[in-house]
Amino acid sequence: MSTITIKSPADFHVHLRQGSLSQLIVPHVRKGGFDVAYVMPNLKPPITNTELALKYKADLQKIDPNVEYLMTLYLSPELTPDEIRKASNAGVVGVKSYPRGVTTNSDGGIESYEAYYPIFEAMQEVDMVLNLHGEVPSDANANIHVLNAEPTFLPHLFKIHEAFPKLRIVLEHATTRAAVEAVKKCGPTVACTITAHHLALIVDDWAGQSWNFCKPVAKFPDDRQALRDVVKEGHPRFFLGSDSAPHPPHAKSTSSPTHACAAGVYTSPILLPLVAHLLESFSALDKLEGFASTFGRAFYKLPIDESTNKVATLRRAPPGTLVEGEYNLGDESLVPFWAGKEIGWILSDSE
Amino acid sequence: MSTITIKSPADFHVHLRQGSLSQLIVPHVRKGGFDVAYVMPNLKPPITNTELALKYKADLQKIDPNVEYLMTLYLSPELTPDEIRKASNAGVVGVKSYPRGVTTNSDGGIESYEAYYPIFEAMQEVDMVLNLHGEVPSDANANIHVLNAEPTFLPHLFKIHEAFPKLRIVLEHATTRAAVEAVKKCGPTVACTITAHHLALIVDDWAGQSWNFCKPVAKFPDDRQALRDVVKEGHPRFFLGSDSAPHPPHAKSTSSPTHACAAGVYTSPILLPLVAHLLESFSALDKLEGFASTFGRAFYKLPIDESTNKVATLRRAPPGTLVEGEYNLGDESLVPFWAGKEIGWILSDSE
Repeated sequence: MSTITIKSPADFHVHLRQGSLSQLIVPHVRKGGFDVAYVMPNLKPPITNTELALKYKADLQKIDPNVEYLMTLYLSPELTPDEIRKASNAGVVGVKSYPRGVTTNSDGGIESYEAYYPIFEAMQEVDMVLNLHGEVPSDANANIHVLNAEPTFLPHLFKIHEAFPKLRIVLEHATTRAAVEAVKKCGPTVACTITAHHLALIVDDWAGQSWNFCKPVAKFPDDRQALRDVVKEGHPRFFLGSDSAPHPPHAKSTSSPTHACAAGVYTSPILLPLVAHLLESFSALDKLEGFASTFGRAFYKLPIDESTNKVATLRRAPPGTLVEGEYNLGDESLVPFWAGKEIGWILSDSE
Repeated sequence: MSTITIKSPADFHVHLRQGSLSQLIVPHVRKGGFDVAYVMPNLKPPITNTELALKYKADLQKIDPNVEYLMTLYLSPELTPDEIRKASNAGVVGVKSYPRGVTTNSDGGIESYEAYYPIFEAMQEVDMVLNLHGEVPSDANANIHVLNAEPTFLPHLFKIHEAFPKLRIVLEHATTRAAVEAVKKCGPTVACTITAHHLALIVDDWAGQSWNFCKPVAKFPDDRQALRDVVKEGHPRFFLGSDSAPHPPHAKSTSSPTHACAAGVYTSPILLPLVAHLLESFSALDKLEGFASTFGRAFYKLPIDESTNKVATLRRAPPGTLVEGEYNLGDESLVPFWAGKEIGWILSDSE
């Protein structure tokens, strides 16, 4: 097989930031082969209402009008059932829940889910999607740490799903066998995104290597195997959400004993080739279109429009093709995941 | 309590390196309050025979003649039972076993212990100590990674102990509850060192923070609790081995996506105050002399000579006392663990 075509690849979890960084990275959605971006709301200030979401969408469209931006709100006490109805009418697709303090700009994250049941009720009525960052905050006294934060969260998923069985829920960026099994056990309204980098990394890869550090952290080899297996199985409720999260090189480096590096791995500009490369590494290349397009589109009720949606074509990269090391725009600079490493596929409109 | 005196503090696991780095760090043994250094043999080339050990000891004595250096050999195929007898006669105290590839300069480490049984037999005869780096190499196919590498090693400890019940064995730098329980289960010939930094750190502390990255990596809160508990219990087979391991700042920083940082945490110059500070944090200050001197000395059969051995005196540090940020000598530079953090105790001969 020397070429692969994928109808309208969709990235169901991406951070597009603000300001000058946004100028650099928004065009990378299409550069990475994608037509659809499901946009995270963890800005400063967070996107907590319809007005902010529409303003943000307009900003993104100004940078690249050819991407379909699916907007989300940041779950916070500011949100009301009325605002949910308003957001839904305005085309906002989902609401993202961040547990407090677990990742970039999550200081306003939630501590208790039951307080939000009226919001979930309204979301269920208008058929909005709840996107869960599925980790609980670390707590040494309870032996909760970055490696069991996700399994420890799963009872919350079950509880919300049981209380709102018709509410569509996505467990974002799953990293553990436990999470894969939990989502499988749930009904058809519960799905799961998987990032590219979690198909590649394990804990050993970020031990002493802050560039591979993200939240949720990559877990054990057996967990990675579970992610690979569910992709290879072609399970329709498991699909790509890159969680591509740019941080400038100085923030990803660990130069000081008193400052930890920023959590996040940047994959947008090489996303579709990288996903193809990784899926091929575990013999799942035939599931690429499902994983990177049709499964997520089905769950999100976004059918492909053959007349307008893009078809991405990947071709076999010449042996020795390496991923570009750095992207720059003005003062902004980014080093992508897999920089300098060999990759087996490139987009056919790339050189 | 405003002062504490400790008879002849002994660090039963320390890396003193070579060349100009050695010039900087060897004086830090006494600066950190210690009288005795149990010296690791993982140099380039490794200390694999008596001659090299005696040469290395002479080098160290030239830098600071006032420390008692206890020398070790690097377990490798070069070692013979005759060499063990020779080493023992020359005053070499122990033999260090490194599993291949798990830490700094361990490429020559061992893969199978049974091949070394004739060596262990000779060691048992002459009463030398076997120092085990108790980790197996990571192996994704077997789901072995940096966080279960130590528990996975423990069957080797039991097997060697069973085969050589009179051989004194030290499981070095234990980091897990499983290791603590394993050593407790063994007979009186098996002991265990614990580092200062593993009494402080958990996995969350080195996630994205390469300066806290060492091997074995710090584990889960429950594991740290087990280390603290066994120190607080005053168990005589658990004592301090700092595993103080200097790496220059550029090697500890993670500036590049393709280079991981060096594994190691540097505690020598602040060791006794740091240990006092940490023990006090979990109400074990009354066990300081046992943990940092007498327990290890008893296991190693090194009684204190009241006429020659140093007495270290710690006094309560003025509030706001911070650990020095950097040590320099010529081109060498080192940033210690706990740099810039508040510390509750200082040595009475320090300013």
